[in-house]
Amino acid sequence: MNILSKHIEAAVEQVGSLPGIGKKTALRLVLHLLRRKPEDVEKFSVAISRMKENVRLCSVCHNLTDHEICGICSSPYRDKTQICVVADIRDVMALEATEQFKGLYHVLGGVISPLDGVGPAELEISSLIDRVSRENTKEVIMALTPSMEGDTTAFYIYRKLEPSGVNISMLARGVAVGGELEHTDEVTLGRSVLQRTPYTPSLIK
Amino acid sequence: MNILSKHIEAAVEQVGSLPGIGKKTALRLVLHLLRRKPEDVEKFSVAISRMKENVRLCSVCHNLTDHEICGICSSPYRDKTQICVVADIRDVMALEATEQFKGLYHVLGGVISPLDGVGPAELEISSLIDRVSRENTKEVIMALTPSMEGDTTAFYIYRKLEPSGVNISMLARGVAVGGELEHTDEVTLGRSVLQRTPYTPSLIK
Repeated sequence: MNILSKHIEAAVEQVGSLPGIGKKTALRLVLHLLRRKPEDVEKFSVAISRMKENVRLCSVCHNLTDHEICGICSSPYRDKTQICVVADIRDVMALEATEQFKGLYHVLGGVISPLDGVGPAELEISSLIDRVSRENTKEVIMALTPSMEGDTTAFYIYRKLEPSGVNISMLARGVAVGGELEHTDEVTLGRSVLQRTPYTPSLIK
Repeated sequence: MNILSKHIEAAVEQVGSLPGIGKKTALRLVLHLLRRKPEDVEKFSVAISRMKENVRLCSVCHNLTDHEICGICSSPYRDKTQICVVADIRDVMALEATEQFKGLYHVLGGVISPLDGVGPAELEISSLIDRVSRENTKEVIMALTPSMEGDTTAFYIYRKLEPSGVNISMLARGVAVGGELEHTDEVTLGRSVLQRTPYTPSLIK
């Protein structure tokens, strides 16, 4: 691409370095920003630097927060005896959106994946074990993606937590609500038969 | 979405305000930036503010540039007797990428589109007429999108330039190179028969 302005080229390069954004899209976004009012563009770039400067990880659950301890860990309304283990902050958001879980979280920062060079030491696993032994935890809920890596990570944590005697549970696996049986994959459908649950009309409505 | 950090929320809102980027993608991009080194994020936001501060329109052709006059207008290697009229700076880039045109450009900043409230006065049309009468222009090439709006704009400019006696040409319309005849739309295919050109082996190779 032949861009006549060094400044536009620099901006396109930066925007194009974001995942899933190619050179053409980057140029389109940059030209869009160029058409905006200067104060709006300033707002845009300030929001991004300010975020990087101020956001940190909660010292308890490793969720992202503006403070030392995140809003969930410091809330008096959450059940501190339950810890839900997730891989990523986006999983926290997804679970919070359901409004069905009132306990605390623990964000691992990924899952064990030897191919990507991620072992247990790279994840917040030992801090989870510490937390469970130190706090009055009654239940640890594994909310990891049902993949090879997610399952491996869950199993690793399970083995580490077993001696503590804490209850360990996992997200239910089965047919998705609204999903069609014929399009559900065999493994999921098979599991949903094996792990069938008592018929509960209130959950179906 | 329940985001625990006001700073992340502000950044997601800004990124999500870009065209074609929804809330979920914005969050993904922001979380990606969060994982980068602080100096890289600084580079990102500085590139964008610096671009907005420094980039302006070339006072001759209204192309984007870092200087008073753009690199094409100020180049001694360009043919100053030809002006190629385009709607947008991206059209300049597309034409420059072909390396087939060595004249100057004139960026209108859009096309006449009454539905969007864009009339001739909103575009750089009078500055084009001025330029043609003032400079030693021999040919004006209309390189506008072959749409209702593009054609209307070209015709408007044609009528304004006609008295000056300058040569007015337009981009060739026809079958796209590499395109299949059966998939070419009727209007284009019809035009390509009516406006057939002498067989030139060198253009086909």
